[in-house]
Amino acid sequence: MMDFPLTLRTLFERAEKLFPKKEIVSRTLSGLFRYTYADYTRRTRRLSSALETLGIERGDRVATFAWNDHRHLEAYFGIPCMGAVLHTVNIRLSPEHIAYIVNHAQDRVMLVDETLIPVLEKVADQLTTVEAYIIMTDKPELPPTTLSPAYSYEKLLQDADETYAYPQDLDENAVAGMCYTSATTGNPKGVTYSHRGIFLHSMNLGLADTTAISESDSLLPVVPMFHVNAWGMPFAGVWFGSKQVLPGPAPTPHILLELMEGEKVTLAAGVPTVWLGVLKALEEKSYDLSSLRATLCGGSAAPRGLIAAYESKGIPFLHAYGMTETAPIALVSRLKSYQQDLPEEERLDIRAKQGMLVPGLEMRIVGQNGDVPWDGQEMGEILLRGPWIASEYFEDDRTADSFRDGWLHTGDVAVIDEEGVVKLVDRTKDLVKSGGEWISSVDLENALMAHPAVFEACVTGIPHAKWDERPLAFVVLKQKDSVAKQDLLDHLRGQFAKWWIPDDVVLLDEIPKTSVGKFLKRALREQYRDFYL
Amino acid sequence: MMDFPLTLRTLFERAEKLFPKKEIVSRTLSGLFRYTYADYTRRTRRLSSALETLGIERGDRVATFAWNDHRHLEAYFGIPCMGAVLHTVNIRLSPEHIAYIVNHAQDRVMLVDETLIPVLEKVADQLTTVEAYIIMTDKPELPPTTLSPAYSYEKLLQDADETYAYPQDLDENAVAGMCYTSATTGNPKGVTYSHRGIFLHSMNLGLADTTAISESDSLLPVVPMFHVNAWGMPFAGVWFGSKQVLPGPAPTPHILLELMEGEKVTLAAGVPTVWLGVLKALEEKSYDLSSLRATLCGGSAAPRGLIAAYESKGIPFLHAYGMTETAPIALVSRLKSYQQDLPEEERLDIRAKQGMLVPGLEMRIVGQNGDVPWDGQEMGEILLRGPWIASEYFEDDRTADSFRDGWLHTGDVAVIDEEGVVKLVDRTKDLVKSGGEWISSVDLENALMAHPAVFEACVTGIPHAKWDERPLAFVVLKQKDSVAKQDLLDHLRGQFAKWWIPDDVVLLDEIPKTSVGKFLKRALREQYRDFYL
Repeated sequence: MMDFPLTLRTLFERAEKLFPKKEIVSRTLSGLFRYTYADYTRRTRRLSSALETLGIERGDRVATFAWNDHRHLEAYFGIPCMGAVLHTVNIRLSPEHIAYIVNHAQDRVMLVDETLIPVLEKVADQLTTVEAYIIMTDKPELPPTTLSPAYSYEKLLQDADETYAYPQDLDENAVAGMCYTSATTGNPKGVTYSHRGIFLHSMNLGLADTTAISESDSLLPVVPMFHVNAWGMPFAGVWFGSKQVLPGPAPTPHILLELMEGEKVTLAAGVPTVWLGVLKALEEKSYDLSSLRATLCGGSAAPRGLIAAYESKGIPFLHAYGMTETAPIALVSRLKSYQQDLPEEERLDIRAKQGMLVPGLEMRIVGQNGDVPWDGQEMGEILLRGPWIASEYFEDDRTADSFRDGWLHTGDVAVIDEEGVVKLVDRTKDLVKSGGEWISSVDLENALMAHPAVFEACVTGIPHAKWDERPLAFVVLKQKDSVAKQDLLDHLRGQFAKWWIPDDVVLLDEIPKTSVGKFLKRALREQYRDFYL
Repeated sequence: MMDFPLTLRTLFERAEKLFPKKEIVSRTLSGLFRYTYADYTRRTRRLSSALETLGIERGDRVATFAWNDHRHLEAYFGIPCMGAVLHTVNIRLSPEHIAYIVNHAQDRVMLVDETLIPVLEKVADQLTTVEAYIIMTDKPELPPTTLSPAYSYEKLLQDADETYAYPQDLDENAVAGMCYTSATTGNPKGVTYSHRGIFLHSMNLGLADTTAISESDSLLPVVPMFHVNAWGMPFAGVWFGSKQVLPGPAPTPHILLELMEGEKVTLAAGVPTVWLGVLKALEEKSYDLSSLRATLCGGSAAPRGLIAAYESKGIPFLHAYGMTETAPIALVSRLKSYQQDLPEEERLDIRAKQGMLVPGLEMRIVGQNGDVPWDGQEMGEILLRGPWIASEYFEDDRTADSFRDGWLHTGDVAVIDEEGVVKLVDRTKDLVKSGGEWISSVDLENALMAHPAVFEACVTGIPHAKWDERPLAFVVLKQKDSVAKQDLLDHLRGQFAKWWIPDDVVLLDEIPKTSVGKFLKRALREQYRDFYL
């Protein structure tokens, strides 16, 4: 068959030719902005032309520092279609990490939202490779900034060529984009996405059994475009000619709901906290969400109660799993046809899991004795391979930790049931390894937090002379002295095997947390290192 | 990203792992046969093991000579997953052509349906490369045959290894399958399909905007599995875990309707004559077709009336376009979201066209002065390129006629409207080239056949001293002398530009036809060569 490279140009030009009348809606500082794909594709070509004028060549990294809006969407195709690399910088990182990743990626140009100028100004003097800042405002005038040299996005586009022709000879394995992911310790790690990888991942999003993105959709990516390409939605959306609704800077739940109602959104995507916030806002005010065919949720495990709340409103909840290294969609929780008539509780049990492997990838779940049986019991680490799975961290010697023998070792521990549905149970580093067996810290934490007296609970493995490690529970009570340690352990005894039960409970006033609110287990392990010795 | 080859093994193993309980229904000589994907995948591995025992190696061609049934489906994966090439031989070809293609492909082994033994016996002495015939019957016993050496499919499988492991190092560009297409003159031309091409075409069939094949489908390919891989349905069906309903030898319209009703078929695929036959059968007896979400129709243009008849029964009619060289789905006629509320007649007008380019391919429509405008008027030849478009005819010097400058020249002439919807108007070879302009013979024929006195009509270009060619009409009247030539020409005058009107009409008793019932225009052109000179 033809040696035809799978590149983003093919996606872009299909939208340009077939869907010029379709609409893109973008929430900006000046209100809701609307234009057509015809406008969008002309401006995208202008952006490429402007970048070429600034000296950008194939393989050069061009960064974006932006919210989800139409200009960011222009950058999504304008940068890679000309052969350059779209580097989406996470605006929420610490200044040190922002400086690290921009320098590490060697970004030559940065596209910066007007509202984010102050954030970037703080680190600009540390950026060693950036030759130009392009400020994305609604007006051609440049706002005041110490970023230098600074250009106005709109002014650059005015002066650029809307017939700029994209190269036809790009290699499908050329890098189209990159994104850095936080590491447990140390600097963020860079993941690069090839044209081929994005092409195939986008196709995957169009599959009826994945997210079925189509021309008839109105898409609302709440997940940021600086976070794993907003799960690939903007790429698939353009290809298939979907209406796109981009929620702009710092959208609140009510803003999201207004957009969903007003723009007849059919598919919205975000992390569990977004859907919790939206649910709360729905209690304050009612909105017509009848157009919504599903809410896509990933990033971290969605609580069963959250899923049930949406399903009870007639809004199917599409639970998915992936990570920066997987571009990201790897698992989607959908019922098989013969599960559709199961009792509601059983259906919810399935939907609360992370789901089945999407077409095109391959998976192993490897426990202590090789691949685990599909029994929903035995734990193993999720290993993935396939055409949209990263093969390395960009110029980073931590590559060897995660990429071995042709598989991505995700660091996520899961069980898989006989239907092939995967349920996450822990991170490998948080598993308690006791006497050659694995104990899920997450399962124990969830059980402890279900106790009415418990405010929060954290479980971690602590060195033990006989068993290598034994679980130790850290608990913050809602009301001091309201319950005895022994009662908490008895509460667990009914639910787990005897050897899973922590040997002790430490009552704390507060559990130490990371900057994003996760338990700082490493600190507890260090502090209580000798507790069982 | 990972250098992960796109091969059929990935499709097969997903079905094996995720859908062992799903069902395959196959109409055999002994009645309806049912088994699960678990049975299917075990037997498929046994088939590969048996072929290896017979000496089949990577790259070897293994032919099938079979109807649509479960054994043919086993061959669909069992042959390519081991690295061999699935060559589906068209059972309806002439004996000479069957011998030609088996010899040309150098098939080493042939899998032959019991019912088709007599057809193959007639040409067996001409087959120079076939070393073994495997007879596919419902019993392990071999039926009497002069084919030699002959093996029983079921006996071979009994003795084979159901844990046969498929190679992981197949190249995605390796040939997985091949199919020969009839040529206007001379021998059939071979098209090869790579693993990568079938992988991507299968993904295309799963797209919401193409045919949306999913796990919840019950698929009925009426289109033969010896014809362009039954349009790829068996590959996509296995990958996505769809129920598959295979209609076996020579199904009648009533057999198809019984299967559609009984097996709750959701998507059925066939050529227009199949759907005409089914429509007629529906007038004789009623069936519950409420499960049917669409009928997929291609192979030749479906008449508007046929589409309307299905739509009026609430059965969406999915008109598609493709050819052996395009694996085959290249265009699908779907309404865009903003066309859904058009008046019924306008919607039918759109559905009666061949449709829009599917995601992943690229198209040009090239007329006399380069790419035609999207005005629905100017005619041009359809050129296609993409990852599931052939790049050559297999060892055939006619390759240069159709594959030029990186594009497949389809030989189909079309117009394209401003929405990007393509309508076929003719074959390039049948266009009348008059004074530097193109005239569609098909349009004139359809207009003539719409005249109440006309039984059939054929139009072809005849050499002309001044205009190079001028159209000449050949007409068979329902009743002799019921209408004058001039009346027929007047009938056309209201509908076409003046220079389109044929210079004359020849009344015939019969129009010469090919073996499959198409007008033999070449013969008429030859016979009337001097008519205008």
